Amino acid sequence: MPIQNPNSEYPMTFTAHRLSPGDSAPPACRLAARRASRSNSRFSVGGVTVGGREIVVIAGPCAVESRGQALSIARQVAKAGAHVLRGGSFKPRTSPYSFRGLGKEALLILAEARENTGLPVVTEVISPTDVELVGSHADILQIGSRNMQNYALLEAVGKSRKPVLLKRGMMATIEEFLMSAEYVLAQGNNRVILCERGIRTFEPYTRNTLDISAVPLLKQLTHLPVLVDPSHGTGVRSLVPAVSRAAVAAGADGLLIEVHPQPDKALSDGFQSLSPAQFGSLMRELRKVARAVGRTLHARRPGRASPA
Amino acid sequence: MPIQNPNSEYPMTFTAHRLSPGDSAPPACRLAARRASRSNSRFSVGGVTVGGREIVVIAGPCAVESRGQALSIARQVAKAGAHVLRGGSFKPRTSPYSFRGLGKEALLILAEARENTGLPVVTEVISPTDVELVGSHADILQIGSRNMQNYALLEAVGKSRKPVLLKRGMMATIEEFLMSAEYVLAQGNNRVILCERGIRTFEPYTRNTLDISAVPLLKQLTHLPVLVDPSHGTGVRSLVPAVSRAAVAAGADGLLIEVHPQPDKALSDGFQSLSPAQFGSLMRELRKVARAVGRTLHARRPGRASPA
Amino acid sequence: MPIQNPNSEYPMTFTAHRLSPGDSAPPACRLAARRASRSNSRFSVGGVTVGGREIVVIAGPCAVESRGQALSIARQVAKAGAHVLRGGSFKPRTSPYSFRGLGKEALLILAEARENTGLPVVTEVISPTDVELVGSHADILQIGSRNMQNYALLEAVGKSRKPVLLKRGMMATIEEFLMSAEYVLAQGNNRVILCERGIRTFEPYTRNTLDISAVPLLKQLTHLPVLVDPSHGTGVRSLVPAVSRAAVAAGADGLLIEVHPQPDKALSDGFQSLSPAQFGSLMRELRKVARAVGRTLHARRPGRASPA
Amino acid sequence: MPIQNPNSEYPMTFTAHRLSPGDSAPPACRLAARRASRSNSRFSVGGVTVGGREIVVIAGPCAVESRGQALSIARQVAKAGAHVLRGGSFKPRTSPYSFRGLGKEALLILAEARENTGLPVVTEVISPTDVELVGSHADILQIGSRNMQNYALLEAVGKSRKPVLLKRGMMATIEEFLMSAEYVLAQGNNRVILCERGIRTFEPYTRNTLDISAVPLLKQLTHLPVLVDPSHGTGVRSLVPAVSRAAVAAGADGLLIEVHPQPDKALSDGFQSLSPAQFGSLMRELRKVARAVGRTLHARRPGRASPA
Repeated sequence: MPIQNPNSEYPMTFTAHRLSPGDSAPPACRLAARRASRSNSRFSVGGVTVGGREIVVIAGPCAVESRGQALSIARQVAKAGAHVLRGGSFKPRTSPYSFRGLGKEALLILAEARENTGLPVVTEVISPTDVELVGSHADILQIGSRNMQNYALLEAVGKSRKPVLLKRGMMATIEEFLMSAEYVLAQGNNRVILCERGIRTFEPYTRNTLDISAVPLLKQLTHLPVLVDPSHGTGVRSLVPAVSRAAVAAGADGLLIEVHPQPDKALSDGFQSLSPAQFGSLMRELRKVARAVGRTLHARRPGRASPA
Repeated sequence: MPIQNPNSEYPMTFTAHRLSPGDSAPPACRLAARRASRSNSRFSVGGVTVGGREIVVIAGPCAVESRGQALSIARQVAKAGAHVLRGGSFKPRTSPYSFRGLGKEALLILAEARENTGLPVVTEVISPTDVELVGSHADILQIGSRNMQNYALLEAVGKSRKPVLLKRGMMATIEEFLMSAEYVLAQGNNRVILCERGIRTFEPYTRNTLDISAVPLLKQLTHLPVLVDPSHGTGVRSLVPAVSRAAVAAGADGLLIEVHPQPDKALSDGFQSLSPAQFGSLMRELRKVARAVGRTLHARRPGRASPA
Repeated sequence: MPIQNPNSEYPMTFTAHRLSPGDSAPPACRLAARRASRSNSRFSVGGVTVGGREIVVIAGPCAVESRGQALSIARQVAKAGAHVLRGGSFKPRTSPYSFRGLGKEALLILAEARENTGLPVVTEVISPTDVELVGSHADILQIGSRNMQNYALLEAVGKSRKPVLLKRGMMATIEEFLMSAEYVLAQGNNRVILCERGIRTFEPYTRNTLDISAVPLLKQLTHLPVLVDPSHGTGVRSLVPAVSRAAVAAGADGLLIEVHPQPDKALSDGFQSLSPAQFGSLMRELRKVARAVGRTLHARRPGRASPA
Repeated sequence: MPIQNPNSEYPMTFTAHRLSPGDSAPPACRLAARRASRSNSRFSVGGVTVGGREIVVIAGPCAVESRGQALSIARQVAKAGAHVLRGGSFKPRTSPYSFRGLGKEALLILAEARENTGLPVVTEVISPTDVELVGSHADILQIGSRNMQNYALLEAVGKSRKPVLLKRGMMATIEEFLMSAEYVLAQGNNRVILCERGIRTFEPYTRNTLDISAVPLLKQLTHLPVLVDPSHGTGVRSLVPAVSRAAVAAGADGLLIEVHPQPDKALSDGFQSLSPAQFGSLMRELRKVARAVGRTLHARRPGRASPA
């Protein structure tokens, strides 16, 4: 048996049989497992339905760098058909001396961008003590890769009433990813969105190696919506469109894409950000692929988003 | 440069600029690099064009187990629209005591299957001394993952006049993959087909982790056709369809799919083989995805294949 | 430069020159880099000197399971010559339903064990909000693997006046490890101890793959003390002694070893814990290896430890 | 059970119990497994005993570049106490355009070096067709990392009567490593030496990550001698001494170390080669560590080596 006990703290075996039964999620995966819910989790955030037939595209800059930059990019991604606006306010950075985001100021700018565009907003929270502040301005709380196993933070967002976008750790197994979602669900917050963003391998041409099989695998193991982040997943602008198409073809429920007005001037991640024009043409490509797999990606419905 | 700035958020060895110039293939990549050929490599094998607008689907059993099994599966995959027949004759196995293929007998069976179906045949060659024998029966010589850096074998198939299907090593970088293709090309054989088949990672749910970004990356770095093997790439039957769709959406020129009449009775890799019925419905899905990305996957053209 | 020449035999990102200059730590590594301090960091904790000529051995159970278990194991490891007592009070676990430690009760038990044995105590802190509580009972604050990039937590322990034992992330590069130490140092806390504990690879025989070269590499890049955790590094009891000897021979400043009175009855990690008798004989082996490399591992000096 | 059948072509699980029984080598590991032989394999090559109490040190240049270079380095490593001379004659290279060794000329030079120094010689064979030629000049046939699963080559050296030095693949599991040794043993050649040389990971500071736990693990699973190659294992000259000491402390039966008269002028791998002086002082360090773990590393016994 792959897992002897729910305390499994180490990799399980790969066995050909593991996926034969539909209930191959870890035994300790009580709420996140497919077996826990007949139907797919599906919920509405600021007028956008996540987990339904429609593909949800979240777009925006890696970080909110200024009011002007954020409001302009928000208008542009909304115009191109994005459904949710992303933008970093509190940025986890490898170096303590790097640009770490505008913090609360960024939250106010994102709220203003939501007012202008009607797009709900997702931004990352990196500390339990910030959950209330971030939650009072954002529509979706993002847990970044580095914090996928920051259990104090997972329980804090679990206690909040906000939807949570949980990114897979750079080196997390699918079991660990599901168990981290379980931490949020166990606190009574069942609006969890999973996001595959690439794992770390030996390949130097790309920043990470996007695990495309994680999409159908997660759709089989859990009822939670599954998104893909092709920007971090590749780290290379020219690879983002192809990998985005692949994600939709593989069954992803949405995408998280970095777009910047002037990618080469970005304070972070510019090399993997699309320009608004590139994003617009990608959206057109994605509509065709979505249709080919029985999904839709129509223009955002009107309707106000609200942080409440 | 390993580290451009103190804000480095990625392994200091990943550089955002690597892919900016179109000529980012390794300098030693003289013949395989995109810069070496204005147009994509494109050639015909037994009436099938590889590297063109049409997606090429190679299907068949992991190994030829018997005349009956091979002839029957050949008819079934041909009927479902496969363009090339695959089947192992000499099987590299981790254990010297495992079933290692029927050898020459399998080659004769594959030739008979070609006569019956008109499908050209690809089979693996694992030793330089077998190249002539295998080449006299097969239309395409496959070099398996474990032999990607078996240079004596690469030069032997390079000297033959047969097209070569080169699979990426389980832990090979894209640079190493291209340089192995260079070994074949340097011998004067320019009919090389690259095949991404998954890399080895820490994830136990899947046999390998298919590197989907390798598809657009290779299309950017080289003019050679790029195929994907979702069967080894996932190792799990239920994941093969989604990953196959993703590969086509990402721009792959074809697929290599294991199909077995009774997957659960297969002598090897049954757990990742599709049944003929599953393969048939996958072909129907792939037609739609191919169309969505401006490619085609129409039924195999009539026409005789021949080993000559 | 990613590729120096067409003869590149290694991932194009590995550069032979990186370690030629003595100052090859990342530029942003301002306080942790070797170049920042002429001499090795060296400090005393409860009568034990860390970073000096003497090898420091930290031993104890994975988790404090009961007062009896902890006090008895504390006496046994002290008798065998351990210098510091380890024991988990707040346990990060993959599953929210696993045993997660006795929390504050464990802290009181550890303090009592310190009174009985004179051994200073190290225990893990997993949330910024617990730093003050844990710091008021423990002598050294441990940051676990999963939290190596939990920057809010790193800054919280950086603000405390307690020594910090920072474990390398399961998939962290050496650069990232040093930059996480930089987060603590940047807050004015310069008593940071680094601990290599194995990285995640594809190998299923062991829980992790201990990166032995990280020891001399870190000693070259930084002035901070470097410990090794062979228990998590291997995940297998029978491999702990050999890997412990290797760590000392490679130049480690100390070891972190799990010891349990009845390993097979442990609530966590029993399979990688040594029995007190096994630990005692390992200490005898380590004395010889330490001497062979010009270090010492003599019995703990008398002297009271205190949380102040 | 970790392995359902001997045909296991995929990673097994890590389970705490796997190593409890002494017979945890794969079932298909019939001849290489510890259970197959009461005592450790031990044999003599040109007067040097491999697998005994004495640590065997194999040293020399990556490649034989010229008669002068090889004869001079041979004298120097012999003087420093090396027991066996290494030197590449046929070099597998990532690029077909790289220096690929002097071939037969190198074999003659190595034979001359053996006459001068009395040191038996090990050199790599990369093609089944070269086995007889290389075997007629060398004392030990080396199978390189890239060829660990080149089964045609493994069977060819298995049929020869020469001792075989089998290096672990860059990405091979311990199971696969043992099964490759099984290929040689199954041909009736029981003089197989295993060599851990590092696996490929995400770490860019080092060329590979040396898996130190593989040493005690292999000593537990098999009766074959286990060597370590710290030169390829780290790829960095300054890390070689510490990792060499660690290998001996962990129980390795010997080392394979690259030494070059002028490392910075080497045609290959200079950045990881020691100078003769560095090698000499390393040998002095190793003597102390060997003694600390109950082994010896005394000066080479007199006695002629011969290719017979």
